[in-house]
Amino acid sequence: MMKELKEQVLEANLALPKHGLVTFTWGNVSGFNKEDGLVVIKPSGVPYEELTVNDLVVLDLEGNIVEGHLKPSSDTPTHLVLYKNFPDIGGVVHTHSPWATSWAQAGQSLPCLGTTQGDYFYGSIPCTRRMKPEEVRGEYEYETGNVIVETFSKNGIDPNDIPSVLVHSHAPFNWGKDARDAVHNAVVLEEVAKMALHTYQINPDTPSMDQVLLDKHYLRKHGANAYYGQ
Amino acid sequence: MMKELKEQVLEANLALPKHGLVTFTWGNVSGFNKEDGLVVIKPSGVPYEELTVNDLVVLDLEGNIVEGHLKPSSDTPTHLVLYKNFPDIGGVVHTHSPWATSWAQAGQSLPCLGTTQGDYFYGSIPCTRRMKPEEVRGEYEYETGNVIVETFSKNGIDPNDIPSVLVHSHAPFNWGKDARDAVHNAVVLEEVAKMALHTYQINPDTPSMDQVLLDKHYLRKHGANAYYGQ
Amino acid sequence: MMKELKEQVLEANLALPKHGLVTFTWGNVSGFNKEDGLVVIKPSGVPYEELTVNDLVVLDLEGNIVEGHLKPSSDTPTHLVLYKNFPDIGGVVHTHSPWATSWAQAGQSLPCLGTTQGDYFYGSIPCTRRMKPEEVRGEYEYETGNVIVETFSKNGIDPNDIPSVLVHSHAPFNWGKDARDAVHNAVVLEEVAKMALHTYQINPDTPSMDQVLLDKHYLRKHGANAYYGQ
Amino acid sequence: MMKELKEQVLEANLALPKHGLVTFTWGNVSGFNKEDGLVVIKPSGVPYEELTVNDLVVLDLEGNIVEGHLKPSSDTPTHLVLYKNFPDIGGVVHTHSPWATSWAQAGQSLPCLGTTQGDYFYGSIPCTRRMKPEEVRGEYEYETGNVIVETFSKNGIDPNDIPSVLVHSHAPFNWGKDARDAVHNAVVLEEVAKMALHTYQINPDTPSMDQVLLDKHYLRKHGANAYYGQ
Repeated sequence: MMKELKEQVLEANLALPKHGLVTFTWGNVSGFNKEDGLVVIKPSGVPYEELTVNDLVVLDLEGNIVEGHLKPSSDTPTHLVLYKNFPDIGGVVHTHSPWATSWAQAGQSLPCLGTTQGDYFYGSIPCTRRMKPEEVRGEYEYETGNVIVETFSKNGIDPNDIPSVLVHSHAPFNWGKDARDAVHNAVVLEEVAKMALHTYQINPDTPSMDQVLLDKHYLRKHGANAYYGQ
Repeated sequence: MMKELKEQVLEANLALPKHGLVTFTWGNVSGFNKEDGLVVIKPSGVPYEELTVNDLVVLDLEGNIVEGHLKPSSDTPTHLVLYKNFPDIGGVVHTHSPWATSWAQAGQSLPCLGTTQGDYFYGSIPCTRRMKPEEVRGEYEYETGNVIVETFSKNGIDPNDIPSVLVHSHAPFNWGKDARDAVHNAVVLEEVAKMALHTYQINPDTPSMDQVLLDKHYLRKHGANAYYGQ
Repeated sequence: MMKELKEQVLEANLALPKHGLVTFTWGNVSGFNKEDGLVVIKPSGVPYEELTVNDLVVLDLEGNIVEGHLKPSSDTPTHLVLYKNFPDIGGVVHTHSPWATSWAQAGQSLPCLGTTQGDYFYGSIPCTRRMKPEEVRGEYEYETGNVIVETFSKNGIDPNDIPSVLVHSHAPFNWGKDARDAVHNAVVLEEVAKMALHTYQINPDTPSMDQVLLDKHYLRKHGANAYYGQ
Repeated sequence: MMKELKEQVLEANLALPKHGLVTFTWGNVSGFNKEDGLVVIKPSGVPYEELTVNDLVVLDLEGNIVEGHLKPSSDTPTHLVLYKNFPDIGGVVHTHSPWATSWAQAGQSLPCLGTTQGDYFYGSIPCTRRMKPEEVRGEYEYETGNVIVETFSKNGIDPNDIPSVLVHSHAPFNWGKDARDAVHNAVVLEEVAKMALHTYQINPDTPSMDQVLLDKHYLRKHGANAYYGQ
């Protein structure tokens, strides 16, 4: 099982440069094995082109290293908070993909302007509040996870319905049912972040899409009555 | 004949990622055999890199599956409405190509600002009205076709002169004399959608191009007096 | 000699897709042999991937075909006007490269905002006036050449100093000492057209660059005292 | 030692087109051997695809050529001023990378809007003042170096903390502990220059990032308490 998860996490990490989501080592993917309570994650600062299965780090949810000869991603505590608080997810991805990061830097949630976003996200993708000085000076990466969780709980957003977040002044985190799905969502986020800016440049008064149309598109791909795909 | 059409439809579907028009499975191409009244279309949700001739689905214009072991694209009813109402077309393409989709999300028709568009489109490319809640909740993909047809009939636009449409809050559909030609038009649409935004950013007061120049360019490539090409 | 010129013109045409300057067949390059008074040009509507030396068309400056089994580019009369009026040039390129075309559609000359442009263009790159209905309805491609020549003569611009022009509502033409040099200038134009829009988006009040700096950069690459390169 | 430095400088030069930072020959990288006081730099105007180790030029800090059969980059005097004044650096890169160059043309410093920039630059990246006519007419490339040094000394910026500069109306220079590191910084600069414009387009009132967050990100990658990487 861990072998399979490791291969999936390796493949998901290698998918980041393939989809143009990362420059250098600006990203990391983890996968979670619910039965064993173990996380597999990219090591810190290792270039994608050199990354192998043996470089991956295995940790428990408390951050204790179970296997691996390298330091895990410096963002590991954020991943762990997400796995602990979002019980249905099996993969987490962090990138600095440029369009989504521009929205995060602008401190703006990404409204749902069309069916492309509605096929994957059941509404707008929230931007967190700025982190407080004591959060930044403290256990920063752990607090980053907390501020993400707070953003979803305070606004009553189900993380299964909106599998991405923009961390203020920083960049996006994405998740999914597994590592591969999380990367898929990261690609979608980047594409809709790009299109949203251009949409506003064409028409600054563009409203969010109609709720009825959003229901239709999201639910034709998700839930009991989905009819997209095979 | 169906073998030839299938190969053409396969090739046209594979041309979408090649031209950068699709992310993942966000697009589909169909071709129409007028003599037999049969449509060949991409199956739903199958990645382009795995797509083979045998995966394609053959249907009649009422949507009855004549051949194929997979579900057809969920957008099939839209394609069928277009074939029924636009009698000269032999191919239909739907994509979420990002520049054209940004115009669709903005709910704006794409004005004809220069000869690049004028070489292929005899004027501006219309954006449909928003779909009504009952249309969305009803037979949504069928109604999408209807709202496209309404857009052309109400505004007196000949679908042979303007082989693309922007569906409001959604994305473009394109057509042509065959599947390959429809993809060609989809590529042109994406290029002119990009240039139109940049044109307005350079000069927000840019008017539509002169009618005389539009006549010249469109008619040097189309109709009895065309003199472009061999 | 013609063999060498043909190979250079073929190579220059193939450089257009390589540099991302063309979609489909939206461009053409010609080269001029001054001694024989003959022009070699791309045939009309032939895809670059299929183009061979034997497809190229040889004409005299009056447009009489001297050699070739295909129709020359429909823009041939524009090329011929440029060779006749700009005595020092040996190559002409027409493209619909998207950034330059956006400026042409906006009907705006491209100001010289920095040394990248100043290294190749001794000032701003003019946009022509709109063409008159009778020019468009008449010998359109010939008149396109005339309006380019008028733009340079009326404004006292030396075509050797500014080897590109934006044709209003249309797209750029570029030239150079030979076909390869003309393509080189077309690449530079596209790059500076992109940067100029972004520059204005960063600072709408950006003035043209200082004349002293422009003199320095243009003249360190051109003329008797040039010291750039080997 | 010089052999190793030459190979590093060659590789760093070849990395420029690989990272999309240069068009044609619009860039140059040098490396500095502190012990011998010698600089290895790209020759002027030689295409990257033809560049070999033997084409590189070796000079002392006064610009005397020690080895090499070609003329060094015309920007060599700028590189030499930087090596003389910024004692910790071992590599310098000049490019006309389009996003950074757009900021340079706009005459605007690049504010620090998020952690992507904060991971590499300890604040905003300054734009120099315009150069004076006598500086441009005089030893221009040498004076370019002087105006860069002035920008850092007048504003009390440590060049180790901000390893890039935008030269007004021109383009960026970047440096680092060696040639490879300097190119790395040039890639980061281009990425953050792109994102900064998009950030302002999303939210024109975006402030600089919080100083506490900047401290955190810069210092987790730099200095005694860095904990990023292996």
